[in-house]
This record gives sequence, structure tokens and C-alpha cells, in this order.
Amino acid sequence: MTNQEPDQDSFIVRPNPHDARLTERVTGIGHDGAPVTTSVTVERPLTLYLNKREIVTMMTICDYPDYLAVGYLVNQNMIRPGDTITGVEYVEDVDAVIVRTDTETNFEDKLRKKTLTSGCAQGTVFGDMMEKFDNVTLPEDMQIKTSWLQALTHTVNTTPSLYLEAGAIHGCVLCEQDKALLYMEDVGRHNAVDKIAGYMYLNGMSGADKIFYTTGRLTSEMVIKTVQMGIPILVSRSGFTAWGVELARKVGLTLIGRARGKRFVALAGEQRIVFDASQDISENGDVDEPAHLNRKGSSRDE
Amino acid sequence: MTNQEPDQDSFIVRPNPHDARLTERVTGIGHDGAPVTTSVTVERPLTLYLNKREIVTMMTICDYPDYLAVGYLVNQNMIRPGDTITGVEYVEDVDAVIVRTDTETNFEDKLRKKTLTSGCAQGTVFGDMMEKFDNVTLPEDMQIKTSWLQALTHTVNTTPSLYLEAGAIHGCVLCEQDKALLYMEDVGRHNAVDKIAGYMYLNGMSGADKIFYTTGRLTSEMVIKTVQMGIPILVSRSGFTAWGVELARKVGLTLIGRARGKRFVALAGEQRIVFDASQDISENGDVDEPAHLNRKGSSRDE
Repeated sequence: MTNQEPDQDSFIVRPNPHDARLTERVTGIGHDGAPVTTSVTVERPLTLYLNKREIVTMMTICDYPDYLAVGYLVNQNMIRPGDTITGVEYVEDVDAVIVRTDTETNFEDKLRKKTLTSGCAQGTVFGDMMEKFDNVTLPEDMQIKTSWLQALTHTVNTTPSLYLEAGAIHGCVLCEQDKALLYMEDVGRHNAVDKIAGYMYLNGMSGADKIFYTTGRLTSEMVIKTVQMGIPILVSRSGFTAWGVELARKVGLTLIGRARGKRFVALAGEQRIVFDASQDISENGDVDEPAHLNRKGSSRDE
Repeated sequence: MTNQEPDQDSFIVRPNPHDARLTERVTGIGHDGAPVTTSVTVERPLTLYLNKREIVTMMTICDYPDYLAVGYLVNQNMIRPGDTITGVEYVEDVDAVIVRTDTETNFEDKLRKKTLTSGCAQGTVFGDMMEKFDNVTLPEDMQIKTSWLQALTHTVNTTPSLYLEAGAIHGCVLCEQDKALLYMEDVGRHNAVDKIAGYMYLNGMSGADKIFYTTGRLTSEMVIKTVQMGIPILVSRSGFTAWGVELARKVGLTLIGRARGKRFVALAGEQRIVFDASQDISENGDVDEPAHLNRKGSSRDE
């Protein structure tokens, strides 16, 4: 797989690094004092309203304000199974997005207690976010083959993206077996997660047979969001926090970190992993992590 | 410099990777299916009170709750020049830290409008956080030599740290010339910044002759915090966002990104850079970024 072209036909949504709104060319100087021109990611404010109430202003690349808005509300438990979304409106000239529901929601109670989390700003965890943890059951029979894992990391590493174009951005990918379906990027990694959650919610897509890949660290809130989406397997090229591992074990989520080339470490839900691929690192090494992709060793990513 | 031992005598505060509270040993399986035991970073909740008011609950490694608490309040403009801190109390058994001031502060007004930012949760930017920008003057005559830059990145890359021990953590370093003074790490990069701000505030340390190094991306809020600390030069091994560059140019901050080995790109305040070091990358290459440090290419860091 590592020497093949990635299977990019499977994408429903993929990055569009050539969208002129998403990057800007900036001129400065390099280490030798000579002028250099480089691409940088553009972040924009986006204020989210739920019906008439202002919820939050987020910084985002703003490529999918509708998915971001809905995914944020769903992941924060501000929209519940009983609620019906009647419309999502992006008002570009005032940097706002409005989500309308058929009834008032009960999220105001949740605003009383908020926890700022260790990750991105959108990782705000409300007091009762954990409540789903006691009820959730992730499908036990779902598996991940190591050949899929290698194929997926190769696809992510070689798909044209804003990361490869301008850097300073996070990516999340929703996968099914060895196919990457939705690849979202954003300046905050929780924006990327929420855009995928919004897409899944609006398209009635189940998480039960999916694998979630993130470039970010496997923190408690990343575990919580994955479980909320009903996805049984979470993969990252980055590292773990202790609480993330603890929550994953409690809920039975398969947690695979430091996934690069053929290497990985699994610290929870290991029974879902099927070892069908070559594990000989010396053989084909980290061929799918070529140096120019500049992705080695980013366990400091989040 | 690249082949010398780093100058670690200059540290006032440095990481303590052997503090048993900060990491946990966890057992899982590796890519070959064999058991592996690895270190993961421990994150803990910490609830911050300003006098009698609960402000926020943060996730932190909790090595310096006092500096974190004060730095958070100072960077959020919740403590102003006229305010006097009369005490900081860490109550370990309830995971709380209380900052007491002699008078009530006016921060309540600021809570009305908040902006979640693109980085870590503590990057919450209140409506008037920008107000300092119109008044601030960063010292024009402050310089940074490329030899200092090389020495500092070498010191950061080779100093024992939680990052090297367990990964999944951010680091910030306050520097003076080629000396690293304060090296703080945390699960959120804004915690690391705030711990440095808290130390500076409580010790009456000026930012005017300092250089601020971060492993995180050069986003708008990282620029804002650096300027609030009065520091004229901001360096990162990671990349830029467009708004970060725009703000740095507006306020005259020197912004150096993608700093690895001898390489870097400067996109604002370039006039402070003095090119006194060899710029020949082929010559000594990235010797100060040895592969085992696993830090290459982490422009996806944040």
C-alpha cells in the first residue's frame, strides 16, 4: 500500500487547498536574510446563534460554517435527539451563522457550569457532557485491521490539504474500513471534529461502523466527542493524556496513538485490532511518511 | 553551539519530568501486537476563584497552580495595574486555587462578551482584550541575534522535559539573549504561557528585554498574550496564521516561525533580527534537531 497512490476516490468531503479564501500569501525574510513569500492560514471569526440566542464566537477557516455550527451544538449537547433543526443560515457579511430549531432547547441550564479543557477553545465541556458516558454502548464487533490503518495514514499524509499548503492547521478524517470519507481541517482541532459531527448529523450518517482519525492529541475531550458521535475507534498520530486513556477504557473505545507509518501504540480497546499487515518496520519503513511531508515526530500536535 | 551541551545553568524554572504526579505509566500494545508500557501526561481539573467568584475550571498538569491562576487573570485583563494581589491559595483536596485582591475588580463586565479562539481553551479572548493593542509600544532597540536563536532552540530541544518523557504537551520558554530563564509545559499551550505570565507578574519581571519561545502556532491570541507581557520578540517552531501576522505587524512585534535548527521564517518586525550566525544549512545542518528528539516537522503543533 505504501508505494501506491492513495485511494482518494472514497472522499465525500476533502480539503480544498486552492480555495483562495483559506490561505494568504505573505512576504517576510528567511534564515539567510533573503525575502521569502509563504502561505499562511486565514482564520475568521464566526458568531453562532441558536434561534435568537448568541452562543459563542469561534475562530475558524469558515469553509463549512453550517456543519461547524450544527456539529458544535450537537457535540455540546445543546441539540438533543428530540430537537428538529428547521434551518441553518450563514450570513457572510456579519460573520454569523444561525441554527433554528422547532422548539426552544434546554441548553441554558448547561451554560451555568463550564469547564475549559486542555485542548482547543471549542473543547469547552459542559457539566453534563459526561452523562452520555453512562449510557453509551459502542459496538463490540467492529474491528480495525492494521492494513486499514496503514492505508488510512498513507491517504491522509498524501492527500493535498491546507496543512501541506500552509501548515498551522489540524485535520480530522472520518473513515470506513480503509476508505477516508470526510476530511475536514481547521485552525482549532475541535472545529474540525465538529464539522464532521455536523455533516454526520445533517446527513443521518451513523458512527457505529466508522473509524475517527485526528492529527490532534488523544485528550479527554477528544475521547468524549468520539464517543458522542458513536464511533468505536479513535486514531491519532499524536500522543495520549492519562485521562483520555482512562475514559476510553471506561467506555470501551479503541484508542490508537502515535500512529505513523506502520508504528502505533494502542492503550484501550485493543481487542478490536486485527493484525493482518506486515509489522516489519525495517522492511518498508516509514515510506508513507516521506520527509517532505514534514510530519514526523509531531506528538506535540494537539 | 550545535555540538555543545546546552547552557542549562540559566534556568530559573525548568521542567521536572521525574515528578511522579505529572506522568503515569500505562500498558497497552504496540504495532506488532506485543505489550508496551509507556508514559502519558496526567491532566487534572483546577477551578480558579477570584475572591469569592468562580471564574473557570481548567485542565492542567497542575505543577504551578499559583502561577497559572495569576497569569490567567492577568492575561485576561481580570487583574489590572491598579489591583493588588493579597494572596494565592491552592487547595489541593478540592482542586481549587483562590486568588485574593484588595478590592473588587471590574472583570464581570468583561464576561458578557467572550470569543473562543482557535487555540487552546484558555485562549478565550474577551471583548476588550484588544484594548491594550492601541496603547502598547514595544521597545524598538531590542534585538535578536541568529546565534541566540540557534542556541535557544538547541537548549529547548535538549533540556529534559515532560515532552521528551511523555509527549502530548506544549512548552513555552522565556529567554533573555541566548539564555533560557523559565521553561513551562502544560497540556494546553495557553496554560504554559499563563504560568510564565504569572511568574513574571509575581516577581516583577519585565518583558521588555525578553524573547518568548513557544512550541505552539503563531495565532492571533498568542501574539496578543506576548504583547500583553510586553515582550517584543515571539519565536515558534510551528507555523503562522494570517491574523497572527497581521496583529504582529500592526503592533511592531517580531514574529519568527518555523524555527528549526538554523532555519526560520520571519513575517513581522524583521528589523530586530541580527544575522551573526552561519546560515549554511548544509554545513552543520539540523544537528541540533537530532532525529530521536522527534521534533521535526511539527508545524501542525498548536
